[in-house]
Amino acid sequence: MLPRGRPRALGAAALLLLLLLLGFLLFGGDLGCERRKRGGRAGAPGCFPGPLMPRVPPDGRLRRAAALDGDPGAGPGDHNRSDCGPPPPRPSKCELLHVAIVCAGHNSSRDVITLVKSMLFYRKNPLHLHLVTDAVARNILEMLFHTWMVPAVRVSFYNADELKSQVSWIPNKHYSGLYGLMKLVLPSALPAELAHVIVLDTDVTFASDISELWALFAHFSDTQAIGLVENQSDWYLGNLWKNHRPWPALGRGFNTGVILLRLDRLRQAGWEQMWRLTARRELLTLPATSLADQDIFNAVIKEHPGLVQPLPCVWNVQLSDHTLAERCYSAASDLKVIHWNSPKKLQVKNKHVEFFRNFYLTFLEYDGNLLRRELFGCPSQPPPGAEQLQQALAQLDEEDPCFEFRQQQLTVHRVHVTFLPHEPPPPRPHDVTLVAQLSMDRLQMLEALCRHWPGPMSLALYLTDAEAQQFLRFIEASPVLAARQDVAYHVVYREGPLYPVNQLRNVALAQALTPYVFLSDIDFLPAYSLYDYLRASIEQLGLGSQRKAALVVPAFETLHYRFSFPHSKVELLALLDVGALYTFRNMSSWCCPRPSPSICPMLQAWTSPASAPAPPIVTASRPSRTNSTRTCPATMGLLPSNTSRPCSSPRAPPETEAEAGRALPLVLALGRHQGNPACPPPSLLFKLFKVSGKGWG
Amino acid sequence: MLPRGRPRALGAAALLLLLLLLGFLLFGGDLGCERRKRGGRAGAPGCFPGPLMPRVPPDGRLRRAAALDGDPGAGPGDHNRSDCGPPPPRPSKCELLHVAIVCAGHNSSRDVITLVKSMLFYRKNPLHLHLVTDAVARNILEMLFHTWMVPAVRVSFYNADELKSQVSWIPNKHYSGLYGLMKLVLPSALPAELAHVIVLDTDVTFASDISELWALFAHFSDTQAIGLVENQSDWYLGNLWKNHRPWPALGRGFNTGVILLRLDRLRQAGWEQMWRLTARRELLTLPATSLADQDIFNAVIKEHPGLVQPLPCVWNVQLSDHTLAERCYSAASDLKVIHWNSPKKLQVKNKHVEFFRNFYLTFLEYDGNLLRRELFGCPSQPPPGAEQLQQALAQLDEEDPCFEFRQQQLTVHRVHVTFLPHEPPPPRPHDVTLVAQLSMDRLQMLEALCRHWPGPMSLALYLTDAEAQQFLRFIEASPVLAARQDVAYHVVYREGPLYPVNQLRNVALAQALTPYVFLSDIDFLPAYSLYDYLRASIEQLGLGSQRKAALVVPAFETLHYRFSFPHSKVELLALLDVGALYTFRNMSSWCCPRPSPSICPMLQAWTSPASAPAPPIVTASRPSRTNSTRTCPATMGLLPSNTSRPCSSPRAPPETEAEAGRALPLVLALGRHQGNPACPPPSLLFKLFKVSGKGWG
Repeated sequence: MLPRGRPRALGAAALLLLLLLLGFLLFGGDLGCERRKRGGRAGAPGCFPGPLMPRVPPDGRLRRAAALDGDPGAGPGDHNRSDCGPPPPRPSKCELLHVAIVCAGHNSSRDVITLVKSMLFYRKNPLHLHLVTDAVARNILEMLFHTWMVPAVRVSFYNADELKSQVSWIPNKHYSGLYGLMKLVLPSALPAELAHVIVLDTDVTFASDISELWALFAHFSDTQAIGLVENQSDWYLGNLWKNHRPWPALGRGFNTGVILLRLDRLRQAGWEQMWRLTARRELLTLPATSLADQDIFNAVIKEHPGLVQPLPCVWNVQLSDHTLAERCYSAASDLKVIHWNSPKKLQVKNKHVEFFRNFYLTFLEYDGNLLRRELFGCPSQPPPGAEQLQQALAQLDEEDPCFEFRQQQLTVHRVHVTFLPHEPPPPRPHDVTLVAQLSMDRLQMLEALCRHWPGPMSLALYLTDAEAQQFLRFIEASPVLAARQDVAYHVVYREGPLYPVNQLRNVALAQALTPYVFLSDIDFLPAYSLYDYLRASIEQLGLGSQRKAALVVPAFETLHYRFSFPHSKVELLALLDVGALYTFRNMSSWCCPRPSPSICPMLQAWTSPASAPAPPIVTASRPSRTNSTRTCPATMGLLPSNTSRPCSSPRAPPETEAEAGRALPLVLALGRHQGNPACPPPSLLFKLFKVSGKGWG
Repeated sequence: MLPRGRPRALGAAALLLLLLLLGFLLFGGDLGCERRKRGGRAGAPGCFPGPLMPRVPPDGRLRRAAALDGDPGAGPGDHNRSDCGPPPPRPSKCELLHVAIVCAGHNSSRDVITLVKSMLFYRKNPLHLHLVTDAVARNILEMLFHTWMVPAVRVSFYNADELKSQVSWIPNKHYSGLYGLMKLVLPSALPAELAHVIVLDTDVTFASDISELWALFAHFSDTQAIGLVENQSDWYLGNLWKNHRPWPALGRGFNTGVILLRLDRLRQAGWEQMWRLTARRELLTLPATSLADQDIFNAVIKEHPGLVQPLPCVWNVQLSDHTLAERCYSAASDLKVIHWNSPKKLQVKNKHVEFFRNFYLTFLEYDGNLLRRELFGCPSQPPPGAEQLQQALAQLDEEDPCFEFRQQQLTVHRVHVTFLPHEPPPPRPHDVTLVAQLSMDRLQMLEALCRHWPGPMSLALYLTDAEAQQFLRFIEASPVLAARQDVAYHVVYREGPLYPVNQLRNVALAQALTPYVFLSDIDFLPAYSLYDYLRASIEQLGLGSQRKAALVVPAFETLHYRFSFPHSKVELLALLDVGALYTFRNMSSWCCPRPSPSICPMLQAWTSPASAPAPPIVTASRPSRTNSTRTCPATMGLLPSNTSRPCSSPRAPPETEAEAGRALPLVLALGRHQGNPACPPPSLLFKLFKVSGKGWG
């Protein structure tokens, strides 16, 4: 029988105590969380206090004034509680994260690569990039990712031009143009099965692991669909100048450089209609958007505040011209994403800009090859061709004296075609593109080359990521080069100790857009008249698609540093007579054999004054190539192949000491062989052929 | 009146429920933590499961067999509970963290810089580095940190040579030598007030924020004093080969590449005596330590297991030759510290070595200037001179046409003196050091220079961090250069668009260790006999410390790429006669004026066959300088100063087109002026003077 009355009450109390104690032990971890929450430590993800941190009431709706203009000393908002309460926020180790970026044109393509590098540097999850691109960006980025071969990265392309009509009716004053509006149509443009996506502007840089950002999806209430950081300027407050009338926004509004999108919920909520309705209505009284998609996102959110989940300010530190971002980053110890949202980009005036620029430069100049890192413990489909490549590399014999050459041959170099803005040449039936390749130490040839060849060029540059930036500055600083839109520069990123001459030539060749190409070497300067002369010759000789033919050009070289470029055959012959010029390779050379007998008679014939009246001439000298080395067997015909690593055949000792450290000068005179009876038929020295021809491997 | 009996029991039960509910609500966060704990999420600091993760029982003592050989599938040990229980583990935002590193010699100094770069890249706290160094490392690192000017980093040096006697009695077979043992004496060598320190080997690389490591001090029990990661090989199990007899250790033992030291507790526990006793006793039966300090740490820990706090394996991922580290990193998603503890370093064979090498190369080639980042919100004493520099920079006028030059003049370049192993020349009263400076594009001059100048050289190289690694490979690949220990290479790190010729020359000059220097330019090749000739002249002329005098040398240049170096004055004059040589700068030059009248007669006099019998001769040619630009006003006397940015004076147009892209060749013939009566007294073209002279600013 149970005791009754007082004993029973005592028993109940004891049981209660026991249960409480048990509960306390079971849920003991809570204290840690509670303390962490109260402490409001700035370093914890999602726990950033600060005046720019909007606080969200439990119902998920924004209390306007109180939320956005809270006192600077305020601790973390309710928002932060979710850190301790709900399940662990970071996505699981191998969860696939989706990222969407709109990218158009040559310059944005370069920007997006820096963003991707920063993202890949910190990421620990597989990524799927959804790139909405125009034709230019697609051409660049498709090749880039194909050759980058980063494990656990998938890339899908979406045609921005097909989406244009959906936003082209909106007048937009923002520098991003039509493409700036395209984020609005992502819910319909991206695959229907895609439910979550992080949307990024091309001008953001990651300073942390993107999975931490992805984790913030877990904080969304059941109705929230758009995660955004508050705008870190007073723009939307509408008091910047007299008659400043921004689009409507909640308080300071939100910045759309970094967006978490619940695509599924937006589709369900009728997003397509929602933003169009809002935009149409606002455009009745406002002339245009000032900040592109951001104006429309803000107007929609003002109407439907339940859609938005405010994110901690560190996920979009905005370096606009009149930024308030310092309130955010001086309180936080951990910056997550930097947003260069001033039209001045890295040149923005800001007392801490040096700090942020350092972050940006880190990734701008970072060797992208180093990001080919596997994710341990996350099985993922290897990039196309990667497995075969690994196998082939594994089969190489390190003791083989040609090991380095074979390894280099198997190297897939990252390729960034049309690194700079480029206008393809208009279609002309006899047009010729000059095709060449070079490394950093030959940059100074470009101006002279541009002066000598007024036609289209396709040049492959073998550079590191940091050198590519130096190259960019070099072009910008040269009025001659900056003025030329018909020169396409293709960056092939350096890897390995050898200079992959064939791979470079093939990249440049594949990107030539005219029916004919003129394969040259960067050390050769064509005669001023050669471009016209070749086109005229092609037409005159009827070298149509039916007839495969090559035009052969003789070459000359000089030993002099200073040299007046001959303007006529008479001048050239005079120089030959006094010994200021030699026929090309008619001197002992380093790696390549002397000109073969089949070539020499031809040159002799050409140099006879009787042969041709007005020879087009190419001349150049060759300073040394310090770091790059040509793979000897790869060179063809008369292309110079002086390499510091001679191939199996022993090389002749350099003639003089002065030669040892430097390389040979060349003068190359080009001209079609005029059929002198003393001369054999033209040999295939330099070919002019249809681009459809397969490159050399 | 209270109800009795059944109603009372019901009331108690209701109260109980209410309290439980209340408890559940109050402590709701606990579930999150509980789940996190159970899930054993690999990403959380300190939460790394894996077979190599020693588990620590609540009493802090190690249960040997069970702890170290747990089944691979085991979840996180008890150790992980502390993540959810105790207060937030990360140190507060501005807490100063202390790091101690033992570093000796040229090569370790380079290694330590890569380690420091990785640490600075991720760090968010102020750091105090305690560097125990020999004289060589101190000379290098003191200059490096002084010029690096990283905010919120303090550096203290401790003289390793004074500590030698404390460990020199221990026979040690490890490649780290005596310095490898020095970590044992840190508790007494470091300041008495220092209680906590992280001790690092020079061959570790950080892949995360060091404050996370510091946070693990919070997990120490009241008696624990040494935090270590388990050794990730079977070495200490003693079964690697027959008669393999390692030092005693607990199970697999611990690796001492990363140590958390509670110095206060070790001092209290009588550490000094403790390790000495153990070492002496073990050395009665063991011939020497095999793994330096690590053997002794492990022997002490075996005796006093209560001292050790095992750390998660990711804090010291060991890439030794027979590493078991894969068990650690394939389970973790987040690597924290990589340890290159194979004597083969980056050349270690390991199927994932490419991954780890990429991490290492990231920091090896990382532009250290980018780490001059302030810590927002952590007021710290700026590095010496930093404030004045900031003020001076702020006062510059961007519209000033010389802005770039003035800015460059204020730039403090990071300097790494004696980048490569270097033997100072023995003290000789008339010895002369060749002093010059160069950038990457002149590397190919070094071999010829070494052949021409058999004496000591002090060369300043203007390089990026990545180029410094290329330079290293260049030297290693050249038998001529690798054999020379009397050539000191000083790396001045690139910053800004101009070539800081004076700063470079001053660095090279300050590091010259002989009483006399021969200031040259990298494009000049000295005559083979010049080194001997100069020393003989100094002695003959009695240029003692009393007499300040300069020896003047005439210069010649050629326009030819190929050139046979003249071996006598007769040969030289013959070349002058045929026009193969010119007197230096006797041609129109680019930026500098023609040779002044005071120089020309002197050269004319010297070239008279009557003047001197055996002229020492210097010759060189100058390929182009693509990216570096000399600051024009900085050049002195006849030093070439052709710059692509002419100073205020307009430059003459290049003579020919071929010249525009490239630079001028020089031949410089050096010889003491023999006092020909037709000639004015020697001008100060090249000075030979005591090193104590102040450099040019």
